[in-house]
This record gives sequence, structure tokens and C-alpha cells, in this order.
Amino acid sequence: SRSIDLAVIPGDGIGQEVVTEGLKVLSAVLPQDVKLETKEYDFGARRYHATGETLTDADLDSLKTHDAILLGAIGDPSVPSGVLERGFLLKLRFAFDHHVNLRPSKLLPGVATPLAGQPEIDFVVVREGTEGPYTGNGGTIRTGTEHEVATEVSVNTAYGVERVVRDAFARAQARPRKKLTLVHKNNVLTFAGHLWTNIFNKVAEEYPEVTTEYIHVDAATIYLVTDPERFDVIVTDNLFGDIITDLAAAVSGGIGVAASGNINPARTYPSMFEPVHGSAPDIAGQGKADPTATVLSVALLLRHLGYDAEADRVDAAVAADLTERVDLPPRTTAEIGDALVGRVTG
Amino acid sequence: SRSIDLAVIPGDGIGQEVVTEGLKVLSAVLPQDVKLETKEYDFGARRYHATGETLTDADLDSLKTHDAILLGAIGDPSVPSGVLERGFLLKLRFAFDHHVNLRPSKLLPGVATPLAGQPEIDFVVVREGTEGPYTGNGGTIRTGTEHEVATEVSVNTAYGVERVVRDAFARAQARPRKKLTLVHKNNVLTFAGHLWTNIFNKVAEEYPEVTTEYIHVDAATIYLVTDPERFDVIVTDNLFGDIITDLAAAVSGGIGVAASGNINPARTYPSMFEPVHGSAPDIAGQGKADPTATVLSVALLLRHLGYDAEADRVDAAVAADLTERVDLPPRTTAEIGDALVGRVTG
Ligand SMILES: CC(C)[C@H](C(=O)O)[C@@H](O)C(=O)O
Ligand SMILES: CC(C)[C@H](C(=O)O)[C@@H](O)C(=O)O
Repeated sequence: SRSIDLAVIPGDGIGQEVVTEGLKVLSAVLPQDVKLETKEYDFGARRYHATGETLTDADLDSLKTHDAILLGAIGDPSVPSGVLERGFLLKLRFAFDHHVNLRPSKLLPGVATPLAGQPEIDFVVVREGTEGPYTGNGGTIRTGTEHEVATEVSVNTAYGVERVVRDAFARAQARPRKKLTLVHKNNVLTFAGHLWTNIFNKVAEEYPEVTTEYIHVDAATIYLVTDPERFDVIVTDNLFGDIITDLAAAVSGGIGVAASGNINPARTYPSMFEPVHGSAPDIAGQGKADPTATVLSVALLLRHLGYDAEADRVDAAVAADLTERVDLPPRTTAEIGDALVGRVTG
Repeated sequence: SRSIDLAVIPGDGIGQEVVTEGLKVLSAVLPQDVKLETKEYDFGARRYHATGETLTDADLDSLKTHDAILLGAIGDPSVPSGVLERGFLLKLRFAFDHHVNLRPSKLLPGVATPLAGQPEIDFVVVREGTEGPYTGNGGTIRTGTEHEVATEVSVNTAYGVERVVRDAFARAQARPRKKLTLVHKNNVLTFAGHLWTNIFNKVAEEYPEVTTEYIHVDAATIYLVTDPERFDVIVTDNLFGDIITDLAAAVSGGIGVAASGNINPARTYPSMFEPVHGSAPDIAGQGKADPTATVLSVALLLRHLGYDAEADRVDAAVAADLTERVDLPPRTTAEIGDALVGRVTG
């Protein structure tokens, strides 16, 4: 019989609340014969304050035994900036080789957007997840003095760029519009930019059906607000991907509905699924958080594990709920979760 | 008697057309007793193709004798990406120590924006111009092979960060709202991020009247489309500034109206003023380019040279023209320039 062995990391702030709803929907949508086992991990600010630890080797050994990981949110103002981000979130992405950071953007009918004219937005960003300026390379000299020099080194390898570019081409090929946009800044960051561009152009030859284009990251932010319909699949570096996916989320319904997958396509380690939003400590514990982004992340998780029909049902439930939301009074986190459970089982 | 000795670099594509209008407005607005001298320089794609040169030491020696520089646009698809950007634009910014890259964003009544609800946008971005990932540090090994590694090094110094942060605080102090936002990514780029944050917090102590906040660059792109009214002055690094100012331009009237100054506040070298837009080769030579961004750059130039009243008149002319534009049939580049000349002299 089939089973899913899931590591669950509620994390900080609203993390626990949204993960609870995500798990409710997951349990509800899975066929009877699929056994869902979950193990909860207490990472984040609490653990850091209690033990000084963020993510140990033993933690990684334990996490890697699971089929996948569902994460709520990590981060709290009581922890110095960077400690949990570098010490937990990025450490995990790098340790488990999550090189495909998948972030779909779809504006559903009736969903609020800051853009005028309700454009038809439906694209997915494939963000590189294990290289670029995120490697933690760099340092400081004469730290804290008026002569301090701080460097950050963006590291880009042909190996790392090619595998994510290939993943993006395969995704573009599988979509009706078959269009792939490379976003970089190759006119200024010429070393990394030319590597990305050359590999992109080389792989493009194997995908004659895929229409390709190149856009500088600064110009991409313009198109995301003036012409988001032009995008189908975007492939980009780790930092540019971080920036444009927040903007993409903002124009396509907000970070309350933005899902992401930190995917290891080779499956050498479990992939991790998480909402794009953070821990939002200002609204934590009040039942105000929107669990939709987590539920959509559960759909990505289901698809990654081969439960395509179930993923489709979750996506459809969210789409229906969002579209009808305009007529509903504000609901609590649990009420939205319950509504989605109702839809996936109904 | 007073005089302005101006270096004019029309450049490529629409550069010549927009600069012509900028100069018309500049001549028209200057008081009779101010002698305007201009010298045109032929930089850009033509010169590069003819001579292989982008910007020589002799060019720099000649340029530095002027009071200021007005630039149209540099860049052409016939030149490999990066050659003119690194070899001309960035070389000039670095050589003349243009460390304050000033980019105002003001949405005027009636001007089209992709955002719903016509928000009140009026902020200025102070982008660092001589450091960060723009230094050209980095390189490649095993170039062109499957084992290539390409690095880009962001270089940040206490000296460089402090001077631009000070400039931004002074600007915030001089504005009615007195608010300054630091935009960075200090939770991931911790070396550079902490340098920026520490210096920002240190200088803040000298400006008790200035309200300060810190926002990650990814979140900043969200606020720029959902709540742009929150911004008054933003200070940020070279690359983040590049990205968010294109987005800022898009939401506040488009890059057709976005001006910038590459300023050397110490006046050890002439400052340079240019529209944020590029050379737009697709519409070059057709009289379709909007010269407004160049004219607004002329206003920044005037203010930099101490002609505040004249700068105000140019700004007011543009504001009036933009606001009334909605009732006008499309005009040519020259017609818009003529209308602005009429307004500054009328
Ligand atoms: C919290 C931070 C480390 C993270 C990132 O920069 O990748 C977040 O912004 C994201 O996009 O997942
Ligand atoms: C053309 C390019 C070098 C430049 C930059 O990246 O600074 C441009 O995008 C700008 O914003 O002025």
C-alpha cells in the first residue's frame, strides 16, 4: 500500500497556523489507501533561543529520511537578521540540493491585484536555489571600523546553471504557450551573465518548439507590472528570483496565495514545500493568516510525489474559493482551511 | 557673468532626439545673462564600431573640464551585451565618482500608471553608484567548458556606504515627511547587509527628526506596487537600486518620464544627468520618443548647478504638460519639447 512520510516544520509566527490547515487539506484529499505519516520538527526561534542551534547534522540526518518536507515559516524579530535565514532556511536548501525553486504565479478571476485592468497572469518562475549570491561566500575586513570592506561573492557554475536551465526548458515545453524567458543582468554582471546566457542558448537548441527571450532583471520588474501576460516560464538566478517572485506574488493575488517548492529533481534528498510569505509575527496566533499559500504548496508537494489528480483537486478548490471570496466576510485561518477541505472532499 | 559649460552625449538610438529637446528646454529656461556652452561627444555604438573605443583616458580628460554632462542613451543590439555598459556608462560613473545616483519618482495627477487607484507617489531613490556588484570584480575559470565557474564580487566599503547614506539622510531631512528607508537583503547578504545596516543606524543618530525603516529588497518590490505612498527617500545599493528604480519608474508614469542624476556631491568631477530609459533602437529616428525624462534630467542638472528657480520651472512645465496630456493627441518628440519650451518661457 502507498504511503507518504512527511516532515512537518511549522516554524515561527503564523507558521503553525497555516501548516495545520495545509495538513488538514492534505489528509482530506489523499485517497483512503494512502497512509500519511507526519513527524513534526521544532525548528526556528524557540529552538534557537533554547539551545543556540538552528539545524544540526543530526537534524539533517533525520530530515532526509522523509519523502518530503512541509514548512510554515521561519523567522522572528527576536533573532538577529540572518541567523535563521542562513542557519536554517538556506542551510537546508543547500544541504538537500534544492536547486529548483519553483514559484507559480496565477491571477485567478475575481482575485484582487494592485494592477489596473485585471490582466491574465499565469506564469511560473524557476529560480536557481543553490548558487549565485546566496552561497555565503564573502566576508569582511577591518570589521566595524571606518575602513571596513565587506564582500559578497556570487558563485555560478556551468553544472548548476545548466541543470536549472534544463528543468525550465522541460517545464516550458510541457506548457501550452511553450515560452521561456531568461532574466539576468548580463550587461553588467558579465561573468555570470555570459555563463547563464551561453548555457541558455545552448540548451535552447534542443528545444526548437520553445520560444525564448532574454530580459534584464530591471526591465523584468517593469514588464511584471505593465505586461505580466508576456511571461510563461521564467528562469533566473537565486537573488533575481527572490526579488521578482515577491513582485510576481504581489501582482497575482498577494503573498497570501504564493506557493513555492524547493525541489531536488534528482530526488537524492527530500524536497521542501513552503509558502513564499514569512512568519508575520504581527498577526501570529490570531487566526488572521491566510493558509492558501500553504495549501497551494501542498498541491506542489502532491504533484512532486506523483499525486497529480489530488494536486489538481487542491488547485481547483483554491481557485473556486478565491474566486468566491469576494462575496464572503473575512474568515479565520481555520475557516478558510475548512472551506478548502470541504471542496476537496465534496 | 555666469556660464554653463556642458558636455553633451547624445549616444545611440533615441538619444539624439531626446537630448535635442532637453537642450531646447535648457536654453529656454536659463536667464539671459547665463552663457550656455555645449560640446557634443560622439560616444556609443558608432564610435565603437569605427574605432573599437568606448571611453579613452583622453576622453575622460576632456569630459572632466565641463561643469556637467547631459547624456541621452547608450546601447545598441549590434554591440555585444556589456561592452558599452561596462566600457562606457559604468566606466564613466566610476571614473567620475558618481556615487549618488538620484532617481525621483513622482506620479502626477492624470498620468497613467499600471496600478489601480491612482496612488500618491512621491519619493526619491538614492542609489549607490560606485560599489556593490557593479565593480566588475569577479571572473571565470574553465571558461566555456562544462566545468566553468563564474563569480561576481560585490564590494562594499564603509567609506562608500557612509557617504551615500549621509547624502540620503540629508535629503530626507530636507523633505517634509523626513522618512528614510534602507533597502537591502541583510538576512542573506549578511556581510554587506550588516555593513549597510550598521552605518545606517549610526548615521541615524545624527538625524533624530528622520524616521527610519529597513525593508528587504524583495519586500520592497511588493510595497512599490501595493503601498508606494509609504516611501519618501530610499537609500540602497547599486544593484538593488537599479532594479527598484525601474519598477519605481513603471508605477509612477513609466520610463518615459523617469529622470536620473549621477552625482558627485564633492564636485571633484562633473556630474552626469540622463533619462533612466535606454536607447530604444526600435523607435529611433521616428520622432516617437518621449523627451520628458531627459527634460526632467535637465531639471536635476539645473538644481545641481544651483539654478533652483529654473529647475522648479522645468518641473512645473513637465507637470502641467503631463497632466494635460490625457486630452492631447499623440505628439512627436519635438512637439513635446516645443510645448515644454513654451511653458518654461511663457
Ligand atoms: C527568508 C529568505 C532567506 C528567503 C530568500 O531570500 O530566499 C525568502 O525571501 C524567500 O524568498 O524564500
Ligand atoms: C545600462 C545599465 C548599465 C544601467 C545600470 O544597470 O545601471 C541602467 O540599467 C541604469 O539603470 O542606468
